[in-house]
Amino acid sequence: MQTSMTTQASVQAFQALVNEIHDLNATQSLLGWDLEVMMPAKGAPLRAKQLATLAKFSHNLMTSNEMQEHLRNLRQPGVYDRLDTMSQALVREVGRAYDKSVKTPIELLQEMVETTAEAHNSWVTARANKQFKQFEPVLRKIISLNQRLADALGYEDSPYNALLDEYEPGLTVKQLDPLFAKLKSELLPLLKGIQNSGYVPDTEFLKKGFFPKEKQLAFAEMVLRDMGFDFESGRLDLSAHPFSSGSSTHDVRLTTRVDEHDVFSALSSSMHEGGHGMYEQGISPALNRTLLAEGTSLGIHESQSRMWENQVGRSKAFWQAYFPKLQETFPELAQVTLDQFYHAINRVQSSFIRVESDEVTYNLHILLRYELEKALIEGQMKVDEVPEAWSAKMQEYLGITPANDAEGALQDIHWSHGSFGYFPTYTLGNLYSAQFFNTAKKQVPNLEKSISQGQLLPLKSWLNQEIHVVGKMENAETIVQRVTGEPLNATYFVDYLWGKYGEIFSIKR
Amino acid sequence: MQTSMTTQASVQAFQALVNEIHDLNATQSLLGWDLEVMMPAKGAPLRAKQLATLAKFSHNLMTSNEMQEHLRNLRQPGVYDRLDTMSQALVREVGRAYDKSVKTPIELLQEMVETTAEAHNSWVTARANKQFKQFEPVLRKIISLNQRLADALGYEDSPYNALLDEYEPGLTVKQLDPLFAKLKSELLPLLKGIQNSGYVPDTEFLKKGFFPKEKQLAFAEMVLRDMGFDFESGRLDLSAHPFSSGSSTHDVRLTTRVDEHDVFSALSSSMHEGGHGMYEQGISPALNRTLLAEGTSLGIHESQSRMWENQVGRSKAFWQAYFPKLQETFPELAQVTLDQFYHAINRVQSSFIRVESDEVTYNLHILLRYELEKALIEGQMKVDEVPEAWSAKMQEYLGITPANDAEGALQDIHWSHGSFGYFPTYTLGNLYSAQFFNTAKKQVPNLEKSISQGQLLPLKSWLNQEIHVVGKMENAETIVQRVTGEPLNATYFVDYLWGKYGEIFSIKR
Repeated sequence: MQTSMTTQASVQAFQALVNEIHDLNATQSLLGWDLEVMMPAKGAPLRAKQLATLAKFSHNLMTSNEMQEHLRNLRQPGVYDRLDTMSQALVREVGRAYDKSVKTPIELLQEMVETTAEAHNSWVTARANKQFKQFEPVLRKIISLNQRLADALGYEDSPYNALLDEYEPGLTVKQLDPLFAKLKSELLPLLKGIQNSGYVPDTEFLKKGFFPKEKQLAFAEMVLRDMGFDFESGRLDLSAHPFSSGSSTHDVRLTTRVDEHDVFSALSSSMHEGGHGMYEQGISPALNRTLLAEGTSLGIHESQSRMWENQVGRSKAFWQAYFPKLQETFPELAQVTLDQFYHAINRVQSSFIRVESDEVTYNLHILLRYELEKALIEGQMKVDEVPEAWSAKMQEYLGITPANDAEGALQDIHWSHGSFGYFPTYTLGNLYSAQFFNTAKKQVPNLEKSISQGQLLPLKSWLNQEIHVVGKMENAETIVQRVTGEPLNATYFVDYLWGKYGEIFSIKR
Repeated sequence: MQTSMTTQASVQAFQALVNEIHDLNATQSLLGWDLEVMMPAKGAPLRAKQLATLAKFSHNLMTSNEMQEHLRNLRQPGVYDRLDTMSQALVREVGRAYDKSVKTPIELLQEMVETTAEAHNSWVTARANKQFKQFEPVLRKIISLNQRLADALGYEDSPYNALLDEYEPGLTVKQLDPLFAKLKSELLPLLKGIQNSGYVPDTEFLKKGFFPKEKQLAFAEMVLRDMGFDFESGRLDLSAHPFSSGSSTHDVRLTTRVDEHDVFSALSSSMHEGGHGMYEQGISPALNRTLLAEGTSLGIHESQSRMWENQVGRSKAFWQAYFPKLQETFPELAQVTLDQFYHAINRVQSSFIRVESDEVTYNLHILLRYELEKALIEGQMKVDEVPEAWSAKMQEYLGITPANDAEGALQDIHWSHGSFGYFPTYTLGNLYSAQFFNTAKKQVPNLEKSISQGQLLPLKSWLNQEIHVVGKMENAETIVQRVTGEPLNATYFVDYLWGKYGEIFSIKR
């Protein structure tokens, strides 16, 4: 009885501490959203100070003696085993974060912050000048800091594993290599087949005409409502680069950007961000104010955005319902047929820029980055070898060679942020999304028919129940096994691509 | 040398602590703005938790041993005297806040928070039912808590002085009584004179027609830009009740509300909030991240908003420049003359609701509240006597009697917030604004002529230099003495009213 009471008191104190950490983190998130979406320009320097102060308080709580004490107590086998499931998950996840925090030397973190501040400017300049050389010195420093970080965190096999674990807990090179190998062996022939088909869908009408901002936003909001995004627990605004964020599961912020000479991109990015946002909104309110009230990994998060963006938003079924509405909103499209539109938004084309690439080529862009990152972190490639390696791989995978570094190794912001190990989660998202959607088609009665009638809520409810509600109570591996009955594999994604693009381009596997 | 170094180190550590308190407070302010302006409805409960956590951390820093130690050291005469002016001001102001914090029992604060949460609901219900009786029990509790607060803080003469000091540092009943006496003796005859003049300006055209929101906002923004409000350090949004706020002097948030059947009120409230906002924007950047980077008192703050709203925004000179632009924007006003418009926006009328009242009657509404508050806090009036006293004073000052409590003692939200001593700062703002404006007219060459040509920046620059830049380095008393060469008095305001309204209504003093 005495022990049980003590444990209960410790759990409560531990949870109260976690609540405060969550409040501080949520506040940082809201301040970050405000910075991108609302803040007047001159507010930046003081906002940076405010964010730093909040980060400091949050870090101090996470590494406090009190936290150490709670975890030491609650992690004891005899104690941990008797906790309820939610408390166990909380101890596990907070413990994970705590271990990382105490393993990472403060000096290393500070050096990373300073280096990436410098790297951002260096990257912007180098990109403008199209000179990778100008970015090399700071990139070398960033790689070395990441190697030190990997050493501090510890790893098996490859230092890159320690970095992957930051974004996709538990993910390793051993798992990724065969997934990418499968993608490579299947996507190269698919791309070749598409290119050899001789069919190039007309996409000109997507960008011909004037599509007013207000109408595009109203259309995107309508689709988001149909998807089940709750505007009483979220909002949609404009920003330079679309993202999703927020301060709680009841306060989810999506952003998009609108090009008035492009009828599709704002809608597509809204559906993407809506997928992220609905994941957050769908997490059980019981997990509020804990570190469990968030998506379990970047890969699973990306599966939600990609499912709505691609599996739904680039499907024929979806456009059977929405193309007439789009035509009503934008009379410029009156003469376009559903098939023409469907083919246009699914055009496949080798291109230099990842973020503008299509479903087929996208993961080849990621494969390239994965191979370079791994080689750089493992010390098998030198920084000055990157541009040449980039060109060679672009030629091998996509059959094109960038004319300069801005079209090549300088296009992404990630490395300047210090992020190595992030890119693969994009591909994981695509693979998870296909695997989940394949299961959804089996479990949700008449899923595609519903979608073709503009009924998107059955899918949303299924995702809520199967994936969202548990938040971080389950990790990615557990979720994909529970939901689909098997571990992650690339088959469903490859089958999805072959099926869809085989039909559009009249080619056989 | 040794001592000097120690002091310097102590000043630096003290400032670092203050910086963190400021960051936490600024963050609360931004979260509060977001709550009113942006946050989706369901975000409220968790936002309340986030705000409470930030408040707790801020309070903990303010009352920390570290703070106590710094203040004990830096307040020593031999040490304090050798600090630079800014550090002295910081020690003084932070010391003031610290003393209040430690004097106020935590239980009292908590009881106040709980009681006012309850009071809000009770007030909303009572107002809807027009039954003061329903608000009485919780109001009685609030008054008793305020009396206990006054006792805890300490005071001379009247417990009401302790409460005044919360909003207008140093202000006492002894100062206020003669100011209000002067107002009463001058305003009652002025109002009588206006009522007896037989002239009632036509105001119908202000509300006849449709004035689209976008056009009203664009007009208000133009005027704010002309005033010198810096939109790179601030923004204007919509909210249910206009207010100004922000997270730093470089991030000032104004709000207004738009009635599309009222051409004047959104502009007027924007100029009012713009006055507040420009005060914050005008504070020296050297004071950033300290408790000195804010307006010195509510009264001085209100003087800035009232000056732009009334001395400028209801002046003939201003409308000589802007009425043609307003007519251009809203062709409904094409047939209205400048004089008709000027008279309409300066109509004087006894009315029940303070926030809808004019420049002449406004301070009589405040006088009434001041007398009741003082009597309640001093224990000379009982809560159940309020409605009758309210009616009697309305009859005495304005010649009208409210039909019910919603038109009477239930109209303001302030008491339900627990705020006693706040109302007088509105009148102070009016008095300060007239006294400052009188000096500005002497010191800014051709001030009124500039305004009549739409040149508003000379006034803004003068305000920046004379009032804004010092922030909280100087208190209200010092500022008014330095700027105008004499202490606050009611003469300038009374002269301003008599001059302006004497002319409009053709009456003599």
